[in-house]
Amino acid sequence: MIRFNNDYSEGAHPSVLDRLVDTNMVQTPGYGEDEYCLMAADIIKVLCGTEDIDVHFLVGGTQTNLTLISAALRPHQCAVSAASGHISTHESGAIESTGHKVMELPSTDGKITAEAVRKVHLAHVNDVTHEHIAQPKLVYISNPTELGTVYSKKELQELSEVCRECGLYLYLDGARLGYGLTCEGNDLDLKTITECCDAFYIGGTKVGALFGEALVIKDKRIREDFRYIIKQKGGLLAKGRLLGVQFLALFEDGLYFGISAHANRMAAIIKEALKEAGCGFLIDTPTNQQFPILPDEVLEKLGEKYAYSFWQKADEGHSAVRFCTSWATREEDARSLSDDISDMMRIWNAKNA
Amino acid sequence: MIRFNNDYSEGAHPSVLDRLVDTNMVQTPGYGEDEYCLMAADIIKVLCGTEDIDVHFLVGGTQTNLTLISAALRPHQCAVSAASGHISTHESGAIESTGHKVMELPSTDGKITAEAVRKVHLAHVNDVTHEHIAQPKLVYISNPTELGTVYSKKELQELSEVCRECGLYLYLDGARLGYGLTCEGNDLDLKTITECCDAFYIGGTKVGALFGEALVIKDKRIREDFRYIIKQKGGLLAKGRLLGVQFLALFEDGLYFGISAHANRMAAIIKEALKEAGCGFLIDTPTNQQFPILPDEVLEKLGEKYAYSFWQKADEGHSAVRFCTSWATREEDARSLSDDISDMMRIWNAKNA
Amino acid sequence: MIRFNNDYSEGAHPSVLDRLVDTNMVQTPGYGEDEYCLMAADIIKVLCGTEDIDVHFLVGGTQTNLTLISAALRPHQCAVSAASGHISTHESGAIESTGHKVMELPSTDGKITAEAVRKVHLAHVNDVTHEHIAQPKLVYISNPTELGTVYSKKELQELSEVCRECGLYLYLDGARLGYGLTCEGNDLDLKTITECCDAFYIGGTKVGALFGEALVIKDKRIREDFRYIIKQKGGLLAKGRLLGVQFLALFEDGLYFGISAHANRMAAIIKEALKEAGCGFLIDTPTNQQFPILPDEVLEKLGEKYAYSFWQKADEGHSAVRFCTSWATREEDARSLSDDISDMMRIWNAKNA
Amino acid sequence: MIRFNNDYSEGAHPSVLDRLVDTNMVQTPGYGEDEYCLMAADIIKVLCGTEDIDVHFLVGGTQTNLTLISAALRPHQCAVSAASGHISTHESGAIESTGHKVMELPSTDGKITAEAVRKVHLAHVNDVTHEHIAQPKLVYISNPTELGTVYSKKELQELSEVCRECGLYLYLDGARLGYGLTCEGNDLDLKTITECCDAFYIGGTKVGALFGEALVIKDKRIREDFRYIIKQKGGLLAKGRLLGVQFLALFEDGLYFGISAHANRMAAIIKEALKEAGCGFLIDTPTNQQFPILPDEVLEKLGEKYAYSFWQKADEGHSAVRFCTSWATREEDARSLSDDISDMMRIWNAKNA
Repeated sequence: MIRFNNDYSEGAHPSVLDRLVDTNMVQTPGYGEDEYCLMAADIIKVLCGTEDIDVHFLVGGTQTNLTLISAALRPHQCAVSAASGHISTHESGAIESTGHKVMELPSTDGKITAEAVRKVHLAHVNDVTHEHIAQPKLVYISNPTELGTVYSKKELQELSEVCRECGLYLYLDGARLGYGLTCEGNDLDLKTITECCDAFYIGGTKVGALFGEALVIKDKRIREDFRYIIKQKGGLLAKGRLLGVQFLALFEDGLYFGISAHANRMAAIIKEALKEAGCGFLIDTPTNQQFPILPDEVLEKLGEKYAYSFWQKADEGHSAVRFCTSWATREEDARSLSDDISDMMRIWNAKNA
Repeated sequence: MIRFNNDYSEGAHPSVLDRLVDTNMVQTPGYGEDEYCLMAADIIKVLCGTEDIDVHFLVGGTQTNLTLISAALRPHQCAVSAASGHISTHESGAIESTGHKVMELPSTDGKITAEAVRKVHLAHVNDVTHEHIAQPKLVYISNPTELGTVYSKKELQELSEVCRECGLYLYLDGARLGYGLTCEGNDLDLKTITECCDAFYIGGTKVGALFGEALVIKDKRIREDFRYIIKQKGGLLAKGRLLGVQFLALFEDGLYFGISAHANRMAAIIKEALKEAGCGFLIDTPTNQQFPILPDEVLEKLGEKYAYSFWQKADEGHSAVRFCTSWATREEDARSLSDDISDMMRIWNAKNA
Repeated sequence: MIRFNNDYSEGAHPSVLDRLVDTNMVQTPGYGEDEYCLMAADIIKVLCGTEDIDVHFLVGGTQTNLTLISAALRPHQCAVSAASGHISTHESGAIESTGHKVMELPSTDGKITAEAVRKVHLAHVNDVTHEHIAQPKLVYISNPTELGTVYSKKELQELSEVCRECGLYLYLDGARLGYGLTCEGNDLDLKTITECCDAFYIGGTKVGALFGEALVIKDKRIREDFRYIIKQKGGLLAKGRLLGVQFLALFEDGLYFGISAHANRMAAIIKEALKEAGCGFLIDTPTNQQFPILPDEVLEKLGEKYAYSFWQKADEGHSAVRFCTSWATREEDARSLSDDISDMMRIWNAKNA
Repeated sequence: MIRFNNDYSEGAHPSVLDRLVDTNMVQTPGYGEDEYCLMAADIIKVLCGTEDIDVHFLVGGTQTNLTLISAALRPHQCAVSAASGHISTHESGAIESTGHKVMELPSTDGKITAEAVRKVHLAHVNDVTHEHIAQPKLVYISNPTELGTVYSKKELQELSEVCRECGLYLYLDGARLGYGLTCEGNDLDLKTITECCDAFYIGGTKVGALFGEALVIKDKRIREDFRYIIKQKGGLLAKGRLLGVQFLALFEDGLYFGISAHANRMAAIIKEALKEAGCGFLIDTPTNQQFPILPDEVLEKLGEKYAYSFWQKADEGHSAVRFCTSWATREEDARSLSDDISDMMRIWNAKNA
């Protein structure tokens, strides 16, 4: 069984793992106050183009989201997210568990627009009963989104502008950020994201690390006492060095971007095969997640050899599924999948012509 | 200015107030352990047709909802509500504040169906990633709904059956229950509601009391230690007797139902005038809330004399508004409003013919 | 049975109740935005000596404490209280329920000192692991305390100064404030309290109202959006006017202070009798709560006629109990209790000489 | 600088790390549903002597504590802990953050007794106002405690019996469990702990793993839906295999116990030197944490070469500090520290004779 069902099926990129092995017996202070964390944070600050940010290393994405959001909001405030956003759908109510509503905006492509945010804000302030309604205060976006799509520089800047005008925080979940920053057509970079967002995180778990997310916080109110809140929410790793070491390996010479680009290339191979086979897509995406619509018969057969994720029924006889590549995907596996798709679709098309 | 904007513009029905005055200097134990509360609970048990329930008296609706729901759910569980439900829209994130997501079901009439509940439940248990998703556990409905509509006996029984089959709690918010139980076409009563629901409350605040809601809990798991949770959430009134005395006055000889029927009659007068004037309605409702669509011009003029609630824009030039009657609405005021609507609409129709 | 077990055994002072009756059928806006609330707030602002405060009316003390404290703190911050403080001992974990620890300071008289607060603050900031420890941010005191004692002006000013120096909020729970401000030896007044505290509440429930607490907030950070948080915590009374009307009756001509002084006089009668009978006290208090130590035999006999609260065992054969007077205590009842204490103690002393 | 300030200064035991390296490129399902986790859980079940438990792997101790405790308690219930317990003192209010009070019991040696637990329980149920007080429901102990002491089999069995009689959960925090189970005089083992406790965790972070705690849950109510709650609290590691692999390496052939015993031997070397040098101890402990009282002058000098943790001032001129050994402590370092202590104390004693 070859796994394309997600981007965390393996351990870490070998260079990351080597670094953990090399530093294993070095004694360091705990809780992220070691040299490796400091160095990794410094490199990230350079890439973000400013010293005036805090960088914290946490273990996982849900943990990062709930810690940041609960640190940012007062009790009556809520986060605004696309209905498909990870905090809305796949964190078992983690944000609500910290006391805050997640207000969902409809979205077909996983993104939300500046206009939609402004509308939500105005609807709230103009409602005479607004004190009876959870107050939108933080806009949560992900890049790439849960559907593999990415924001353009212009879109992000517009969102940023609206958030500033409306007094909202803008927070970007970058669980797969590497894949977004290296995909075809992308015009975003860490500097722009830092300029536009009050906080965001650079995902390691899905991009070469064993685990770990680098949370960048620009807003001074959220930065205050943030380590207390990491600790309180259970996210302060005793051997914080493990996070510093990994992000050092990923960022000191661009490994993060190189392996992300690789994953996108692998996805492009599969995408090309799907298009040539005449498959439709739930959505067009330039990153490592592809959402083709395939005949259930073909999917069943593919499933004997490859793991993929079921997404949703498309119609009687077809389903949308997700194929995911990663830094670890071998080209031979991507080509093998592509070939099998081509073959099976050819047969299926012939049978159903 | 005559107020039709809500059903809590006055104090209490005079009989309720008299009883408070009469008992004012009697010394009683605190926190709802007095004779009045016991007697009122006993009467409610008789009306509900069973001794095997607990009756608690709380001060307000949001308080009652958040106390009951947080007592019923484990951390990962969520409440399911119509998108228009009070807990979704008008409680400032009170349920989320206790740690629980409110999952919204689309609804055009404020009600949710047994079929929709079953679908949500099955979608959850059949999702292979369900541990990553908040678990639907409690179904929240209101009767009448926020849109003035009511459930039929058959609808409630179907909901109840589905909830039992799926292991879900069914909880009914009866902030305006009196108006629902006395409206034209209603076939529900307290006995049926008790049979169908795991918990529900009989609203006093909007039906003749100064304040107060009588919460009936049937499910034994929720009943356990419930007074601790009332206290913890700030809902245990020191002079709990005030609640007992009021519900005694409302229920010992049927006052609650009589004044509710009155409010519905007053609403029917206004509804009739609106229909005769050719107005459309956002929704057809048999209870004390009416949602007509009126020309903005007419609304402006009406607004000089009557308070109503703006609901939503209907089209360029028209808006849906809410007129609310209550136990306190005087027939002369209902007729005055009706006459003014007739007159103004006649003029407006002539002008716009 | 004559009740001296607490100060909320009756309804409201007749003048308060009359006002509720008089205004009962007046139509007002809901949720505390009526004329009565505005007028009552204005009077309280005058008494507090400044316009630059917000006044909110809530229903009960636990509700007020949890709403204020959760509005003031970020997630990692905690409240500091005497171990005997109401939030530590008698609110079923209400503060923790909003996510915040209550850090207890030992105290023999229910009060905490400026020195103890400074020590706690310094211990925290000087601890190198302080990010692993809940951060003290709000000092909770009550006046009178749960043991009936009161702060002097000097003590409160010192507390205030320390709190400002250490960046802590000072919050005073005034559930029984009237009894404190009118007791023998008191040198505090509302102006001084307003100068010293960031927030405090003037208790109505135990001092003449049916229910209700007037929360005064001076700190601007806590004031922001405070009504949202009242709503979210279930404390925004639909008929908020009921609170305004009652505080208007209590404060427009000094009724609050007059009836408080009465309660203290009644307590003094009982205290005098106890002292003359040679009883010891758990603590010496000038307010409406008296904590004598009496022989269990005498207590049992007294209990046939009078309700009191058991406090704690003093030794084999003696217990400390609480006698509480209130605005409603009749002088004949206080004298009857005093006489019975004198008689029973005389007999007991003779028997045990 | 040689670190004796804690037991998490290095990475992982080489055998653990090797196993991570060996399995790095194997593809597995995510979130702990892989073969390694299953195998590790099976081994732990064998060691615990029963199949009728659930084993979950989490990343850190605070996370494990807050997840377990919040899963076990209803809103009004609280955890009971020694005042020195980790959840009381060093988790930044993590338990309170999930809504629950931590009730502190005084303790001089870090342990709590069956008698103290019974007393707390009885005090609660016998208090007529108990509904106003957070309800003790879960007893939290740690073994070894934060002070390095351990429970005897008899003590744990008595605690267990009292908890069952009183309807309380017994939960054991085993962050340093290996050091406890292999120390001189210990008569506990995993089977007995499983019999006595409703839940406990076997700490990996401080005993040879990079990170990770194996949580064993016996009580069926807590077990239900537990993975949802791990996810919600941010503790469900995407690459859960990393935890399974590490615990497999630690437990498949007894490595865990071997390296724990080593740490205790290293501590015994240091302890012996301290005793011979005539030092007192804050407390006598058989495990890897030693709490000697040393002259400040000596401590300052030692601090130039060794890291240790300041614990508390003992008197003018002396302080209690903590020396910690671990699986990673080299005997040469323990001996070097011991020698230096002997030398410095000899000089100091001579000077101060």
